[in-house]
Amino acid sequence: MVLAHSEGRTRTTGLARSAGQLVCVSGWLHRFRRLARVSFLVIRDGYGTSQVVVEDPEQIELLDRLNAETVLRVCGLAVANPQAPNGVEIQHPEIEVITPAPEPPPFDLFRPAIPAQLPTLLDYAPVALRHPRQRALFRVQAASLRGYRRTLDQLGFTEVCTPKIVASATEGGANVFTIDYLGRPAYLAQSPQFYKQMMVGIFERVYETGPVFRAEPHDTARHLNEYVSLDAEMGFIENHRTVMGALRDVVAGMLAQIAQDEAGSLELLGIELPSVPAIIPSIHFSEAQALIARETGENLAGELDLSPANERWLGDWAAREHGSDFLFVTGYPMAKRPFYTHPDPERPEYSNSFDLIFRGLELVTGGQRLHRYDDYLAALAERGLSPEPFEGYLAAFKYGMPPHGGFALGLERWVARLAGIANVRETTLFPRDLHRLVP
Amino acid sequence: MVLAHSEGRTRTTGLARSAGQLVCVSGWLHRFRRLARVSFLVIRDGYGTSQVVVEDPEQIELLDRLNAETVLRVCGLAVANPQAPNGVEIQHPEIEVITPAPEPPPFDLFRPAIPAQLPTLLDYAPVALRHPRQRALFRVQAASLRGYRRTLDQLGFTEVCTPKIVASATEGGANVFTIDYLGRPAYLAQSPQFYKQMMVGIFERVYETGPVFRAEPHDTARHLNEYVSLDAEMGFIENHRTVMGALRDVVAGMLAQIAQDEAGSLELLGIELPSVPAIIPSIHFSEAQALIARETGENLAGELDLSPANERWLGDWAAREHGSDFLFVTGYPMAKRPFYTHPDPERPEYSNSFDLIFRGLELVTGGQRLHRYDDYLAALAERGLSPEPFEGYLAAFKYGMPPHGGFALGLERWVARLAGIANVRETTLFPRDLHRLVP
Repeated sequence: MVLAHSEGRTRTTGLARSAGQLVCVSGWLHRFRRLARVSFLVIRDGYGTSQVVVEDPEQIELLDRLNAETVLRVCGLAVANPQAPNGVEIQHPEIEVITPAPEPPPFDLFRPAIPAQLPTLLDYAPVALRHPRQRALFRVQAASLRGYRRTLDQLGFTEVCTPKIVASATEGGANVFTIDYLGRPAYLAQSPQFYKQMMVGIFERVYETGPVFRAEPHDTARHLNEYVSLDAEMGFIENHRTVMGALRDVVAGMLAQIAQDEAGSLELLGIELPSVPAIIPSIHFSEAQALIARETGENLAGELDLSPANERWLGDWAAREHGSDFLFVTGYPMAKRPFYTHPDPERPEYSNSFDLIFRGLELVTGGQRLHRYDDYLAALAERGLSPEPFEGYLAAFKYGMPPHGGFALGLERWVARLAGIANVRETTLFPRDLHRLVP
Repeated sequence: MVLAHSEGRTRTTGLARSAGQLVCVSGWLHRFRRLARVSFLVIRDGYGTSQVVVEDPEQIELLDRLNAETVLRVCGLAVANPQAPNGVEIQHPEIEVITPAPEPPPFDLFRPAIPAQLPTLLDYAPVALRHPRQRALFRVQAASLRGYRRTLDQLGFTEVCTPKIVASATEGGANVFTIDYLGRPAYLAQSPQFYKQMMVGIFERVYETGPVFRAEPHDTARHLNEYVSLDAEMGFIENHRTVMGALRDVVAGMLAQIAQDEAGSLELLGIELPSVPAIIPSIHFSEAQALIARETGENLAGELDLSPANERWLGDWAAREHGSDFLFVTGYPMAKRPFYTHPDPERPEYSNSFDLIFRGLELVTGGQRLHRYDDYLAALAERGLSPEPFEGYLAAFKYGMPPHGGFALGLERWVARLAGIANVRETTLFPRDLHRLVP
């Protein structure tokens, strides 16, 4: 018997190329349907599913007794059948149990959606994630990461790995997790902000994909206490608009990668990928406020930020007026941005910063940073912060830094918005929130 | 003036293609040499360096006053000159100061090696990393990550992101960092071991590149309290040898990527890349002990692990006997391996595990894991561990898991060994150890 694959087995997704051959597939007992005339076994491997036609009474008895999720090896003849999923099914099987499943799963994995609520899915994550839809979300996540890195590699960015245990709270703020570091206090990094800026002095353009930690006691559908941040920072920019241009290319690159690699997942999830305009429309914070006030009558006088409702309204407006799922809001007030933010030279109460709103939700925050040592000292003094805890960070500026800026994109939020999923916990393998630390 | 690059400037590494053209480069004042007849400015950007010929007395006065690391923009005529680095230099420059450096760097960055000891380099990391040699180490690191991911992507692995904050110590052991998680105790993950195993149930083959945390009060040249672990796990294996085959391809893929992308860094660092045999030689733990005892006279009776000296001896032996920089040691005693380790079915006191020794240093640990639920319960009971804290992990096995295994490779250790660097702190951007939490 000649096997079609060096692993000694064929992947379910490769079966279509094996019609007419003897094949072996291995995977999980996804579903067994015992019918009067002929029975069907659906076997699921890490890539897809295949249908096996079972006619032998002994095999039918065996499969009827086995719990779903039993690990099987099935060898038989691959036969083209336009009615079978993927156009090929396995006939005349030999079936071997590799690992019995001592218990049936807590819910049916073969239904179009898992018949359970989100908390149950999260409690049983190692099983729930086996459902083809749940799995497809994380395939899209992995493709997003590939597209992100590939685009930045092409743009001359260097990947860096910066520490997650830090000696002081990143931005001088609260909301950091405290750890016992071999007898002294330390903190978990809220973002790689300081480190990626320092690295501009070395590589000009850097990125990092890694966990960030926020000790915020939020309990919303869009916040997590640990999430994956896609960070980038670049030097020798003109201003924040240079960064917005790079971000536009990154988002387009992520979508191109998903389209190329994950057509099946997109179909399963019913996702229609947005197109990214060559230039994403942008609106200044003050204009956005004026527009919302004029159109909705909401009084935004004195507001220094946009509310989630404002962002939703702007998302609808961008779709209506510009035919775009993406909208940049630029120039947020300096008062609400961190100390390293670069002001707008023309209107210094506003900043050279931006948010990228994707379908009405803030997806990315970014902007130009200060780059002169003296400006840092002044910015810290103005906020009543001592420069001492920032000494290592400030050293980079003491020795010459170019104008630079960057952005941070939340991976789980990106996939959730893309898939139209309301709760970001569903696009996190093992979410960490106010109430959840397991599994 | 036509610019050669859409950024409005040419990278130093692109200058050779611009001979005869007007160009602008931006970067740091790497070195200024004032000579009697003609003076030379070396400008360093994120990619390389370029030489600028300065003849104008006013420019010479200016450059003489500026601190090294001042950020400059230089526009001029690119002229082929076989004596210049990269064969091209800039003549008749216009020089603009973008950002002055208020202080000179604490050491000369233009010398072949930084004239300072490692602790000083680490204290001044944001400047020390600007040295071309230090920077080259982290270019090799980034290329290693690209090669690692590219190889595993090709082998059908899916990238996953698992939580770093966990509810219990990964392997039931000590040496975990404790954090205050919104009022309750939690821990930093020592490895993604449990999560990557659970993910085999979803994707069959998964990998993760991310930080791991070890609260070990070690103070050696090869241990860090936070490092980057390249983890992979795969299902439907025959035994640990299937994993060793995949690991061989991964190491070869990392080296191929470095060779392709980082020829300049390799030359600068004087690195000769090892070749990876089609099949890496392997030796069983018991044979390795017998060999060392016979050849060196060392009494290893009753030893359940190899010492660093043993590993060095085996590394030399593999080079001598097999012409290989790599050696697998297989079958470590079960007594020294974690509870999820799969025993050797033929000799159950030994395990289906391996270490990969690279030039005499343990680089990778891996092996086959248990995959039956009952085997887990028995293994925990045998070690006197309660199954309760492992409930989430064990759920994966309750619902059917194939034979599987994986490995973990320490990124910083890999680059250090490749570059012949004794202390792993030098291949870590911002190391965390017993004494160091800043910068």
